[in-house]
Amino acid sequence: MDAVKPYVIGVDLGGTNTVFGIVNQRGEILFDDSIKTQAYDTAERFVEAGVACLKPLIEKAGGVENIKAMGIGAPNGNYYTNAIEFAPNLPWKGVVPLGEMFSKELGIPVALTNDANAAAMGEMIYGVARGMKNFIVITLGTGVGSGIVINGQLVYGHDGFAGELGHVTMVRGEEGRPCGCGRTGCLEAYCSATGVARTAREMLAKTDRPSLLREIDPEKIESLDVSIAAGKGDALAKEIFEFTGKMLGEACADFTAFSSPEAYIFFGGLCKAGDLIMKPIEESYNKHVMKIFQNKAKFLVSGLMSMNAAVLGASALGWEI
Amino acid sequence: MDAVKPYVIGVDLGGTNTVFGIVNQRGEILFDDSIKTQAYDTAERFVEAGVACLKPLIEKAGGVENIKAMGIGAPNGNYYTNAIEFAPNLPWKGVVPLGEMFSKELGIPVALTNDANAAAMGEMIYGVARGMKNFIVITLGTGVGSGIVINGQLVYGHDGFAGELGHVTMVRGEEGRPCGCGRTGCLEAYCSATGVARTAREMLAKTDRPSLLREIDPEKIESLDVSIAAGKGDALAKEIFEFTGKMLGEACADFTAFSSPEAYIFFGGLCKAGDLIMKPIEESYNKHVMKIFQNKAKFLVSGLMSMNAAVLGASALGWEI
Repeated sequence: MDAVKPYVIGVDLGGTNTVFGIVNQRGEILFDDSIKTQAYDTAERFVEAGVACLKPLIEKAGGVENIKAMGIGAPNGNYYTNAIEFAPNLPWKGVVPLGEMFSKELGIPVALTNDANAAAMGEMIYGVARGMKNFIVITLGTGVGSGIVINGQLVYGHDGFAGELGHVTMVRGEEGRPCGCGRTGCLEAYCSATGVARTAREMLAKTDRPSLLREIDPEKIESLDVSIAAGKGDALAKEIFEFTGKMLGEACADFTAFSSPEAYIFFGGLCKAGDLIMKPIEESYNKHVMKIFQNKAKFLVSGLMSMNAAVLGASALGWEI
Repeated sequence: MDAVKPYVIGVDLGGTNTVFGIVNQRGEILFDDSIKTQAYDTAERFVEAGVACLKPLIEKAGGVENIKAMGIGAPNGNYYTNAIEFAPNLPWKGVVPLGEMFSKELGIPVALTNDANAAAMGEMIYGVARGMKNFIVITLGTGVGSGIVINGQLVYGHDGFAGELGHVTMVRGEEGRPCGCGRTGCLEAYCSATGVARTAREMLAKTDRPSLLREIDPEKIESLDVSIAAGKGDALAKEIFEFTGKMLGEACADFTAFSSPEAYIFFGGLCKAGDLIMKPIEESYNKHVMKIFQNKAKFLVSGLMSMNAAVLGASALGWEI
């Protein structure tokens, strides 16, 4: 009976750190700890270190008999295969059956999904999407990811890889920017943190207009620098956000033609710019979307943007097993 | 108990004709009849005529006590409100609560959805999508419509208007063709029957190349003429289909990034061109889609493309009530 197993483990497996947390049914993280993801050159060693890190947390929670299950959010995590598949930014290549590996070591069920899906699950259970049955989470980080919820369910698609909204084509033909996925013109190539930095370099090179960003070596500009400059009222930095927001709004207008969600929820470093990015997104969206959809969708920033949020999102997966 | 109500009514409400059919649980249309949609200037008169048309069919079926429910597929039909909302090609303006109106007259539950959703429902229960839980039906007619099934459920979205894939933007900026929806660059502006005819006119005007299509007054060219010419091996007509298929393939590549369906099912007059249109779609799709999705999705032509298919699709809705 679930009542005798009051906790789940949530795991936020990121490119740098992996955080483990013991979570209760109210969404409180009781105990947590982390390891360095990149320090383990094989998945076996990583699992070994993860289990060693978890053991004391599990003991504090009264032993494994109190743990219902574990949920993992990881880049390129496939819910159907319970494996990480061909993640470009992790040290382990190919298909890594991480769910099964942890399950075998810990003796509890383990579910795994990609990080954006975990974020969507977290928003639905603990965040701004509580009570919503149709919404889309868009993560603006190193890449652009997405978690799509339709009829109250995460969309995994036929093969488990649905929700790659960072890779819809926004600029067709030869003028599209190259994308990390090997194609060109993807949303991610423009609206990820690296995309924003590239837009900054392009805009700086194109004109002589003064900007706080000129104090930085162009090759070292990061999206955070653009945020800081825009926050100080720098006109060029604001235009960079307007360009980025305009494209995100156009993309969302297309997504609405697909699933007409109640809300778009943005997650990740870029959102910290607040209205500087959110206003252009919403304005562009309402300008480009079909008339029947105008001024209906909400544009929200995640309320779960601490490191622990990803753990919560992943833990939500554990309750579903 | 359902066992004592062995039939449903399926209604295909089109811009020209409205077909009523009595359908059994095996998907056989036992009795059917039709009225002219445009002959009734108010929805009240249309419902009156519809009920008069249905009465003898219902009697043949042994009376209304044998009818479980009625399902209607109609342009701009909204499943949530049970109404036709602002349909540009129907004589009745504004919001028409057609479901409720028929239900009151007939004394049975009535569900209503848009025509493309009804087609998707028909494919899932009676057609090539039997056994599939994730697929997208794309209707290529006067417009481009879509019915999306995810996790075995039709996608209606937050407001009932999801699945408007004819109105994703394929050509951004000023060079986009004007679309009937008031925006520019929509998929529908290029890949509907009228879009294909326009492509034909543009291609004929651009060059002096010989083509069977030059025998027709350019203003009177229809997509069927292009089909016939392509079927005879006309090179220019084939290029028109290649252009159309290429864009549909690119659009489907974006749709896959969203929901990664098992299959795309094409429905409507244009599909009668067979490989001439289907091959370019599939080739373009596999060229433009993300690597992880390549050569996975099936590209199928509906097996239900008779007039009765739409009735079957709508009737499927009746079983779900």
